[in-house]
Amino acid sequence: MTITHSRNAEEAAVPVTAILARFVADARWSDVPNRVRHEAKRALLNYYAVALGGCRDEAVARIAAVLAHPGGEQATVVGRGEQADPYDAAFLNAASANVFDFDDTHAPTIIHPTAPVAPPLFAHAEIASLSGSDLLLAFALGVEVECRLGVAVSPGHYRRGWHITSTCGVFGAAAAMAKALGLDTQQTAWALGNASASSSGLVETLGSMAKSLGVGGAARSGWLAAVFARHGVSGPPRPLEGPRGFLRVMGDNASDDALVSGLGSQWALLENTYKPYPCGVVLNPVIEACFALRETTGFALDAVDAIRLTGHPLLAERADRPHVATGREAQVSAQHAIAVVLMKGLAGIDEFSDDCVRDPAVRAWYPRVAVEKDATCAVESARVELRLRSGATLAHTVDRARGSLARPLTDGDLERKLTALAVRAGTQVDTARLIDAVWALDAAEDAASVVRIAAGRPPA
Amino acid sequence: MTITHSRNAEEAAVPVTAILARFVADARWSDVPNRVRHEAKRALLNYYAVALGGCRDEAVARIAAVLAHPGGEQATVVGRGEQADPYDAAFLNAASANVFDFDDTHAPTIIHPTAPVAPPLFAHAEIASLSGSDLLLAFALGVEVECRLGVAVSPGHYRRGWHITSTCGVFGAAAAMAKALGLDTQQTAWALGNASASSSGLVETLGSMAKSLGVGGAARSGWLAAVFARHGVSGPPRPLEGPRGFLRVMGDNASDDALVSGLGSQWALLENTYKPYPCGVVLNPVIEACFALRETTGFALDAVDAIRLTGHPLLAERADRPHVATGREAQVSAQHAIAVVLMKGLAGIDEFSDDCVRDPAVRAWYPRVAVEKDATCAVESARVELRLRSGATLAHTVDRARGSLARPLTDGDLERKLTALAVRAGTQVDTARLIDAVWALDAAEDAASVVRIAAGRPPA
Repeated sequence: MTITHSRNAEEAAVPVTAILARFVADARWSDVPNRVRHEAKRALLNYYAVALGGCRDEAVARIAAVLAHPGGEQATVVGRGEQADPYDAAFLNAASANVFDFDDTHAPTIIHPTAPVAPPLFAHAEIASLSGSDLLLAFALGVEVECRLGVAVSPGHYRRGWHITSTCGVFGAAAAMAKALGLDTQQTAWALGNASASSSGLVETLGSMAKSLGVGGAARSGWLAAVFARHGVSGPPRPLEGPRGFLRVMGDNASDDALVSGLGSQWALLENTYKPYPCGVVLNPVIEACFALRETTGFALDAVDAIRLTGHPLLAERADRPHVATGREAQVSAQHAIAVVLMKGLAGIDEFSDDCVRDPAVRAWYPRVAVEKDATCAVESARVELRLRSGATLAHTVDRARGSLARPLTDGDLERKLTALAVRAGTQVDTARLIDAVWALDAAEDAASVVRIAAGRPPA
Repeated sequence: MTITHSRNAEEAAVPVTAILARFVADARWSDVPNRVRHEAKRALLNYYAVALGGCRDEAVARIAAVLAHPGGEQATVVGRGEQADPYDAAFLNAASANVFDFDDTHAPTIIHPTAPVAPPLFAHAEIASLSGSDLLLAFALGVEVECRLGVAVSPGHYRRGWHITSTCGVFGAAAAMAKALGLDTQQTAWALGNASASSSGLVETLGSMAKSLGVGGAARSGWLAAVFARHGVSGPPRPLEGPRGFLRVMGDNASDDALVSGLGSQWALLENTYKPYPCGVVLNPVIEACFALRETTGFALDAVDAIRLTGHPLLAERADRPHVATGREAQVSAQHAIAVVLMKGLAGIDEFSDDCVRDPAVRAWYPRVAVEKDATCAVESARVELRLRSGATLAHTVDRARGSLARPLTDGDLERKLTALAVRAGTQVDTARLIDAVWALDAAEDAASVVRIAAGRPPA
């Protein structure tokens, strides 16, 4: 396997993943000592003992009843022209929504709130009865629980290395589905408890396909957490605030009060933002500054010698990545974003693709970009300074990027974004109809009608 | 919902789970302000935009291909006389094996190594071709990776509140399935990376049914992690040792060296132990001491005034639980174990059932048991001291409980355990044939033959 260049003092010296992977891949039965062989069989004998002993337990019976899918129903995989098992459809649609990091962002936490929460709701609407307003209510509540958990554990949680969209998303999906399923208070608490058993996701996976497994898993596991609760699979009484619960184990200095204060009067959705560009939200002001610099009198790319980017410490922590190799890694690379916008004047999905990252002309700029932290900068602002060969500098500061809370995308922007993305992916979806259906969702008798418009066709 | 009595200073004062659950369960669409309603629709419009945009991405395509199950194959759910989707079968069999905490225990970490690892291997054998020795090899390797990760993150990991069987089990399942699927070194590393996105499980869920979701999920997600890797779903290069990888995020002071030193010469299976009683392993010496006290001249339960239990600090940390309400909670309650063994002279599954916990005569003993820590005690030892109304005391110390590494269960003990459990659950499995098949597994051409013997029949 490839071990990428180490540039972080925190990184361990021992390449343990590679060592373990090679050991497993190379091992042969003849390498295993006889005592170990016999112990393996003892372990399996004991396995059958306890699996037979436990197989009629009530917990197993309830879980089995949920997993059996008696109807064998299928739900829509958005845009792919495919149907899937409903839980798998939720998994896939969450992965699709988040795969480019182009989805929405809850400003205080940088959670992408919708990807884990909306897909199970629409898949459920397809296999059960759910009105548009019931879906919207469940959605708002799921986002509320998810983002409040995020606020309670921020900033220590993400900083430690938790992919907050996955770790909190599973609770959001559980809360939304608890509402959609009409669970009572006790069952809803169980749903949160069941979700706590599945809360996972590491920042280390960002930039790799494994990220999608965390986000997709949050949608699927959160939905199942609620269905399990409905079937009597009971969780612990205090999965969040208990001594070994989510807030204590996964929250570094979590604030329990932040989780519940203002509940019902302050809504997380009102701090939700939408991206104009398919990359980490911290890069929005960077990209806008580069667009502005291209329009500046005197700009000529071949006159630029070096580039300095200054922003909130989060910007450097998340996006100072001069060694990217894939489009996914490029989505969180300030070096790549600056290079590609200055060169091409574009910042769409194609500019954050593997092909674009392989372009030597783009890569040549990476080592010439320095990222500096300024704790006085707001997170939605950034300054890009071009040092020219002549010794002169050109600089542009963006105080509030488009897509921030202060400069939200308009409804029309969102409509155009949807149409452009659906067309680019070749889904052949009737986007005008889909847009109308979403705006009219609160009046819809059957929320599933929306997702069916988004089904699309298989690639030709 | 019920908030149980708080007895731990670490516990938060705000019952946030209950507050959130009530908020979600009680909320009505009419409670949601208009601005929030509109924002919900904006979020959903953006959701369809990005889901359509992402749905043809290569990561989504590869995940979709895995989840599609083209064959629609089914695998055996042990003992229940049912078949299920293979991934669900792995989930259920892992849950069954662990539900009573009667499964094996890796002594240095208290991981239950087999439950997450064996079920996907046997389910895979049913839908593909896998010889007995190939299964055993993959099993030994999966346990090796799982337990080494546990050693690397112990003792901080469990102490913080991680259910180590789930959190490390998903990697064990991934490594085992990587081997069974014949993955190369790079793909095996991806499998570990994909597993890292799903590593979850909180100690807070122990004693509730949600525990089974963590353990079942580890088996399922670990298997899928390997299948995804085989289909090119790539993980990060250093999911374990990277700065935001498993060892840094979920290991408190993890030892990377412990993960790989002695690989291939020291085998985790040789530190595996099997339980004589269906409860937390720390209770083994406690139960044995109580059995011995019952045999002591002068023992009469109605002469006992109070009881003092002394043991390794882990014993108090995990099992000082005088407020249990269910059989599951009783499995990790020293108070319950002592009461029931002294009263009944039995320590089987029925003695750790909900019915037994509801018995007022048993419960009356709970407040009379004090648990004390003695750091000089070995973890496999314990001392039980009965203070009699007469003022006299009766005491018994167990240095090394049966089931410990120093006093392992014999092969015959394991055979009797299997038969007793299969009969008790009414599975109608031919246990003699199953036992023979496990001992002969290394010579079996088709490992699936074993699990088919264990299929059982549905309850009458």
